[in-house]
Amino acid sequence: MNAKPRWIDEEYRGIVRTGFRLKKRVFKGRSPFQAVEVVETAGHGKLLLIDGMTMVSERDEFVYHEMIAHVPLFLHPRPRRVLVIGGGDGGSVREVLRHRSVERCVLAEIDPLVVEASRRYLPSTAAKLSDKRCEVKIGDGVAFVRETSERFDVVIVDSTEPFGPAKELFGSAFYKDVRRVLTEDGIVVSQAGSPFYEIATIKNLARLLKPIFPVVDAYLFTNLTYPGGLWAFTYASKGLRPLRDFKPARVSAARLPLRWYNADVHTGAFALPQFLKDALGRR
Amino acid sequence: MNAKPRWIDEEYRGIVRTGFRLKKRVFKGRSPFQAVEVVETAGHGKLLLIDGMTMVSERDEFVYHEMIAHVPLFLHPRPRRVLVIGGGDGGSVREVLRHRSVERCVLAEIDPLVVEASRRYLPSTAAKLSDKRCEVKIGDGVAFVRETSERFDVVIVDSTEPFGPAKELFGSAFYKDVRRVLTEDGIVVSQAGSPFYEIATIKNLARLLKPIFPVVDAYLFTNLTYPGGLWAFTYASKGLRPLRDFKPARVSAARLPLRWYNADVHTGAFALPQFLKDALGRR
Repeated sequence: MNAKPRWIDEEYRGIVRTGFRLKKRVFKGRSPFQAVEVVETAGHGKLLLIDGMTMVSERDEFVYHEMIAHVPLFLHPRPRRVLVIGGGDGGSVREVLRHRSVERCVLAEIDPLVVEASRRYLPSTAAKLSDKRCEVKIGDGVAFVRETSERFDVVIVDSTEPFGPAKELFGSAFYKDVRRVLTEDGIVVSQAGSPFYEIATIKNLARLLKPIFPVVDAYLFTNLTYPGGLWAFTYASKGLRPLRDFKPARVSAARLPLRWYNADVHTGAFALPQFLKDALGRR
Repeated sequence: MNAKPRWIDEEYRGIVRTGFRLKKRVFKGRSPFQAVEVVETAGHGKLLLIDGMTMVSERDEFVYHEMIAHVPLFLHPRPRRVLVIGGGDGGSVREVLRHRSVERCVLAEIDPLVVEASRRYLPSTAAKLSDKRCEVKIGDGVAFVRETSERFDVVIVDSTEPFGPAKELFGSAFYKDVRRVLTEDGIVVSQAGSPFYEIATIKNLARLLKPIFPVVDAYLFTNLTYPGGLWAFTYASKGLRPLRDFKPARVSAARLPLRWYNADVHTGAFALPQFLKDALGRR
């Protein structure tokens, strides 16, 4: 007898859903912030879900994490100190630490349960959280950037959607504090949602960044396991322009074992489709 | 009482699925070739499904059709005669006919039911099939290119997956015939599947194109409603190189009302992620 296949589906805005063939449920917990779940799938390894939304799929998390980390880190001429806000799964930290110039990476994650579940069930994503160059600070990232006296060359805002615990990460006060903690020529990149299904997220982020940073842009990639596939980051910097200040030769010289990002992909990611250019008021 | 929401799900390789919230089923038919279905969804307008696979979603079909048509048509300096094989929904023909240089567009579609259902239920996609510059030939596209004495500047292979009626469209004999019907500097682009989930499709296509055409490449875009999101086309030409022979000024001069394609997107689409470069043996 064949059992009926079971699926774990993520609904998005009530109109579309992405489902993964379920092998078994591995972990389910609830923190003061959110529901955290790990499941094993037939084709994507383990998934980490927060409030029912897929955050990490073992099979293709490399795409998201390479794009959020290497775009700013290959643009900055010598990134030494990096701050990751959110990203308790450790994938962004893992990619950051591939850069030998990086001396220190601080992860500010509000929810210890995300870190614990990732360390335990997603070691290929989370392992570098134990690297001696990484410090995991459990606490509110917004308060951290408001209060810290540290300075960073790159800040990565690896957040969930703009509600719940992540809401303040989509506000102007937070980005003014980010500017303060950034060194000269510092860069901040931020998860900015699905521009096709929810264009307001990236429009609002771009609008609030513009008075704060002289360089503001957006870049895209295909997220294989997020609904809608097309996913965006905002890019902002005190001085570095994402294409004109990019040195492709640095990418080949670094010889990192990457599967998605390369110098062509860097440039291509800033080629925005026309509907998005129009929405962001760009030529 | 709220009825339980109904979904229409497309399974892909038994491991992932994409679902659309169903409003109502509009049409279901079966031709000698395949099952053809039209449904109305809550968030994506109508969908055309063939053998259960989403071919067209009214909300975002522009992405696929702009990318399959405008990449070759803006590369060719003066496309006058275009052949579309498959694509009975009419979306590719609609984009082709936006180019004023095009005098004639032949659509060779094997299944009259696809054309009929699209004309009736998807008029925004199919309307240009009635344009006086378009001739719809119901019949086997493989036989058409083998037997025709016509010549074309661009051939667009807008096929379903490499099985069923489309199988021969993924073969070497077919592409030798395509070369024969192409004018000097002619271009052929072909739907090449999901490089992430099914890399064999694009690898095989690229391998069989190489001995037939001096220029062979691949380009990508995010298909918002195909499973996996990342979708590929192969590009082959008797002489035109997809980046070095591209004139961005032609795109702005044409002033077409496009929502996805623009000159930056053209270039960015040929920036292949590292895993795909590696698979295709490219630097």
